[in-house]
Amino acid sequence: MTNTTIMASEIAEQPETLATTLERLLPLRDEMRAVATGRRHLLFAGRGTSDNAAVYGRYLCETHSGRRASSAAPSVATHYRSRLDLDDTLAVSLSQSGRTAEIVETQAWARDNGAATVAITNDPDSDLARQADLALITAAGGERAVPATKTYTAQLTALAVLADALGPEPGLEQDLRRLPGSIEAALSAGSDVDSAARMLAPAPRGQLVLGRGLTLTTARETGLKLEETCLRPVRALSYADFQHGPKAVLDDGIASIVVAPPDGPALPGLTRLASTVGAAGSPVLGIGGDDDFARACGLHLPGPGLAPSGPSGFGLPEALAPIGLIVTAQLVVEATARELGLDPDQPRGLTKVTQTEPAT
Amino acid sequence: MTNTTIMASEIAEQPETLATTLERLLPLRDEMRAVATGRRHLLFAGRGTSDNAAVYGRYLCETHSGRRASSAAPSVATHYRSRLDLDDTLAVSLSQSGRTAEIVETQAWARDNGAATVAITNDPDSDLARQADLALITAAGGERAVPATKTYTAQLTALAVLADALGPEPGLEQDLRRLPGSIEAALSAGSDVDSAARMLAPAPRGQLVLGRGLTLTTARETGLKLEETCLRPVRALSYADFQHGPKAVLDDGIASIVVAPPDGPALPGLTRLASTVGAAGSPVLGIGGDDDFARACGLHLPGPGLAPSGPSGFGLPEALAPIGLIVTAQLVVEATARELGLDPDQPRGLTKVTQTEPAT
Repeated sequence: MTNTTIMASEIAEQPETLATTLERLLPLRDEMRAVATGRRHLLFAGRGTSDNAAVYGRYLCETHSGRRASSAAPSVATHYRSRLDLDDTLAVSLSQSGRTAEIVETQAWARDNGAATVAITNDPDSDLARQADLALITAAGGERAVPATKTYTAQLTALAVLADALGPEPGLEQDLRRLPGSIEAALSAGSDVDSAARMLAPAPRGQLVLGRGLTLTTARETGLKLEETCLRPVRALSYADFQHGPKAVLDDGIASIVVAPPDGPALPGLTRLASTVGAAGSPVLGIGGDDDFARACGLHLPGPGLAPSGPSGFGLPEALAPIGLIVTAQLVVEATARELGLDPDQPRGLTKVTQTEPAT
Repeated sequence: MTNTTIMASEIAEQPETLATTLERLLPLRDEMRAVATGRRHLLFAGRGTSDNAAVYGRYLCETHSGRRASSAAPSVATHYRSRLDLDDTLAVSLSQSGRTAEIVETQAWARDNGAATVAITNDPDSDLARQADLALITAAGGERAVPATKTYTAQLTALAVLADALGPEPGLEQDLRRLPGSIEAALSAGSDVDSAARMLAPAPRGQLVLGRGLTLTTARETGLKLEETCLRPVRALSYADFQHGPKAVLDDGIASIVVAPPDGPALPGLTRLASTVGAAGSPVLGIGGDDDFARACGLHLPGPGLAPSGPSGFGLPEALAPIGLIVTAQLVVEATARELGLDPDQPRGLTKVTQTEPAT
């Protein structure tokens, strides 16, 4: 199969997107610390892909920055219009276009309730950027395929710079600078991607995507991309939520994807999970992890962890692994849509800028 | 069809369960206010059905009590063991058995990080109850069917008493006392439940459940029950998240359930949604809402809002509607499982007390 879709070409642009985004945002770390002064809590707001990015921001802040974080319930702002005391809060709003009205409105609500505001968006002239105390402008350029790819990894990169800047001991800069090379390595996964697509496409009852902790964002974003491009309901869950009920539905009619970081406390459980899911009859594609994890999966694509790490290698620590893992998953999703005879660039019923409410 | 399953008999016990739970918990409101003194944030922790109850707690606190609230990411406690400053936080932990080790451990982590703790559980002798600053013991008695029903509505009732006690103007007591009668009314939905089951059961690509704001808990819990008992992947989403991608999968192979409160700011959007989903070819079961909402749905079962409200009626305000709406959904799920020839009491691969990690 030749990669000729817009989605494929935008996936391939990511090393450059991330290099430019880092060049732009690393110098802003003092401004990030200034706007966060006295703000113990982070409150993220986004929808769709941006909400999946928010999940990463939440876990990274709580595991790396020592700050409490959560995702906003936008309807509390836009529909219930609650008055809440947010003077201890930094509100971080994500929208690639900066024009999702619900998120612009949620940011305004947060500010009115006392929060400081940071916007992460691709458009410096958008309302979201102009109305924020600090705008972090990602460098994704125009994105023409409806399924977001490079804007998502650019958002994750911005969140990683922010979370690292707000932590007690910022130490991710060297690893951040390795990101473009690591993504280049992920892009060369080659023919294994087509094998993965051939495994996933025929599953009569769809797909299940599982991650945990820092890779929950990868599971959710992989599930959303599959749903958008392959037009099937996809469950994307944390390992833990899967155990509490949804595992009842698993059988050989469902293909599973398990995404794992190269190391860290979530890896052993995800390795056991890959074995369990396979034992239930489900074909298992593993992305990332280590050698033990690879052996537990029916088919395996290496993540950033299997490349050599260190100053000259492409390996990423768990904190940044989601930025690399999703690239492999994007390649698999794009190939799976083509395997199904679908056009990944133009999913049925979706448009590039989604408004939650219809225009009135 | 005759209701002879354990699940059906436990659904029917709910008026008594809730009456006893209220009798037990309403007198504890001063203790609730005392333990929450100086705690601006609420942090809920639960898994599965208890996590769905936590979603209700979160929305009710933010819309009714004027306090910030969020759901914990338990892996931050149990796996990453992060140090976070929780001295402004009341941690509310939910587990029907009080024996889910992950939640017991998360409560201990919250306390070690400075939080005050409230446990909501059915067992006063459980670790979760004994280790909490305040234990709210629900009165569900033994629950023998694997899918939780009465323990869920008992949890919601406890959360409603707590959120009301912590609000600036507690005012839900009269409505709370109407709950048992309202549930009795919901239990008499009768033959329409069988019609709903016959509509849902044949859908070849499964079900989609949608709610928003305060009824998001109902959508999620309905989806989980369907998944557990009917062994199909079910997507349960907020109206807003549905618009941002997942709507691509909708067609006439998927049956939809939309749950709506009797009034409030989320209702108009949910009414439009029911029309949109139906126009995409999906058969739509509506639960709750008002007359306009009922007309927008292919098949409709009344929720608490359509019964007369006021002191002598069974109507519930939006804040308490989820406690009544789920009862109708439970009846539909139980009937759908039987329609499919499945035993709702003993779903494949599930046990009553779920541990996230296998015993080692």
